[in-house]
Amino acid sequence: MPEETIVETDTIAKIPASEYGNRIENVLKGFSQHKFDAICHRVVHGGEDFKQSTIVTEEVKASIRKYERFAPLHNPNNLIGIESAEKVFPDTLQVAVFDTAFHQTMPPSSYLYSIPYEYYEKYGIRKYGFHGMSHRYVMERAEQLLEISASKLRLLSCHIGNGVSICAIKHGKSYDTSMGLTPLAGLTMGTRSGNIDPSIISFIQDIEESSTEGVIDILNYKSGVLGISGVSGDLRDVMEAAKAGDKRCQLAIEMYTTRIHKYIGLYLARLNGVDGIIFTAGVGENSPELREMICAGFEYAGVVLDYEQNRNKHGERFISAQYSPIKVMVIPTNEELIMARDGYALLPKLRENKRTAEVVS
Amino acid sequence: MPEETIVETDTIAKIPASEYGNRIENVLKGFSQHKFDAICHRVVHGGEDFKQSTIVTEEVKASIRKYERFAPLHNPNNLIGIESAEKVFPDTLQVAVFDTAFHQTMPPSSYLYSIPYEYYEKYGIRKYGFHGMSHRYVMERAEQLLEISASKLRLLSCHIGNGVSICAIKHGKSYDTSMGLTPLAGLTMGTRSGNIDPSIISFIQDIEESSTEGVIDILNYKSGVLGISGVSGDLRDVMEAAKAGDKRCQLAIEMYTTRIHKYIGLYLARLNGVDGIIFTAGVGENSPELREMICAGFEYAGVVLDYEQNRNKHGERFISAQYSPIKVMVIPTNEELIMARDGYALLPKLRENKRTAEVVS
Repeated sequence: MPEETIVETDTIAKIPASEYGNRIENVLKGFSQHKFDAICHRVVHGGEDFKQSTIVTEEVKASIRKYERFAPLHNPNNLIGIESAEKVFPDTLQVAVFDTAFHQTMPPSSYLYSIPYEYYEKYGIRKYGFHGMSHRYVMERAEQLLEISASKLRLLSCHIGNGVSICAIKHGKSYDTSMGLTPLAGLTMGTRSGNIDPSIISFIQDIEESSTEGVIDILNYKSGVLGISGVSGDLRDVMEAAKAGDKRCQLAIEMYTTRIHKYIGLYLARLNGVDGIIFTAGVGENSPELREMICAGFEYAGVVLDYEQNRNKHGERFISAQYSPIKVMVIPTNEELIMARDGYALLPKLRENKRTAEVVS
Repeated sequence: MPEETIVETDTIAKIPASEYGNRIENVLKGFSQHKFDAICHRVVHGGEDFKQSTIVTEEVKASIRKYERFAPLHNPNNLIGIESAEKVFPDTLQVAVFDTAFHQTMPPSSYLYSIPYEYYEKYGIRKYGFHGMSHRYVMERAEQLLEISASKLRLLSCHIGNGVSICAIKHGKSYDTSMGLTPLAGLTMGTRSGNIDPSIISFIQDIEESSTEGVIDILNYKSGVLGISGVSGDLRDVMEAAKAGDKRCQLAIEMYTTRIHKYIGLYLARLNGVDGIIFTAGVGENSPELREMICAGFEYAGVVLDYEQNRNKHGERFISAQYSPIKVMVIPTNEELIMARDGYALLPKLRENKRTAEVVS
């Protein structure tokens, strides 16, 4: 990557790529007195190349670079992280864990768009889905809570935070999900529009006299709850203002929860009903009020909340009534644990690779 | 409209606007020996100005012109039709019937997009919905079939043809619908993509080196069933090829029906279950196979088809089993009847206007 490349993420101010690498190296050097078996890196976009976590090789890095086009704000930084770790821990092998990998089990009817087929064949334009580690983690916890193997369950995992995605999990595998080619797709989020009538893009372009990329930026950073409320993309701020009587904030909350309600309905249909619905991530774990708004109006499908469990209890638990046909759960997510487990599972392979490398050198 | 304007519609070859008007006048002259009380014109986009059918005045024509920006292929032609009729039948008053009017009852949480609020306030960018006459007609027939007032019913109207839209009708009023600002939005259609990850537009733009409008044209005319199958946008052709073993046609059928299935699920959630689901329009009325594919997997919600009724009977009827909690109906649509009825209902007002006009002149 050329020195002048500017690194930009949701949370980090714009700094040159080289400086970003230096900073990561400095952080890692703080751990250099320790010995690690593996360092696991979260990589946002693995495209169709990675159906599971993998040991980082030059080939893997080339793939991560290849999918930069679909995740220009994330994959380059992920790669800088990997290369910084390689410098500081040259003897430790590296593992890449992909946000997209869990969704590689989706059937074509889920992952294809209704656009000319050659865009998929030639350019890889399809639904990839994100939040894979989170959806996988809560699925594995739901197995424990329900005491039924995931291979026998139909589950909806609702990852609801600043980013929002829902995953329809059929028999332990991702079957459909709301995010798409990029994390802009699907539901109303903190600052993202989710899906809209595609025609709108040319109207906004005319209004703003901007490039298409400029419009996509507006849909990524100035839309969603922020765009409707005009106040904030943080649901906590918007909830507060809504309670104080702000009409636009009330509307933003209604739209945010209505979209989630509708999409849960969409995935209920996709799986012909489900055994359980899981709420996770910032809002999903911490806002009993929003969970109630989302779950209101699922009587037809068999969702009955236990309001005491929902409002006054904390942590991993059921929030549906004992007799509710569909079980509703709150499960705090733990993506780091999924990453650590994946690294651990690859250890025998890592050691083997290392031995081979020693023999060769 | 200047003489050089080119008229373009889905079905009419490109001809100059003046020529289009001439041709309509010629057709109308064939009826000039008759006397009509009213001539009713279908107008695609009435925006927020028209909640019902209305007598055409200069003000109404100005509104139709105003909404040309959202229906550039339709509203100008609709206006040419009105003005041609005014020339041939100068003594007959004209009535405008809008495709959007029925959906004006939607609440803001249905019609607003999760984009900066000012785009709605200043520029009217919102969901308008289409196929309003069709959804209204089948709702009125469903009342008769179910022998229950629509004011007590929750219904889904599925208008499935080359264009596809679903309307969630709550207590006799449109509550939510799948088409949006324009008829491109929502489901997979004959040649239209429906909703997609908005980011895709900039990728297609790069691939095609085209303008945003060029991409929107691809999404309108080269996508949907045509884009996936590579064969045709006509479901009959694609069904035939699919039966003969064409994999891409099989995929196109699967995607078309899966999307409808998912959206029915979405609107089931929007209304907390429904009393009835109505199939109408080309495919909805005439393809028992596609209806079966769409309805498979709604056991959780209470849909049980009667396969004999679905496959071997014809015309307006129930196709659900007698004990099915949700009633499923096939109702051939009749938009012309809705238009004629609306004109008839306005007759007292028309006569009054005419008398006033005579007094004034």
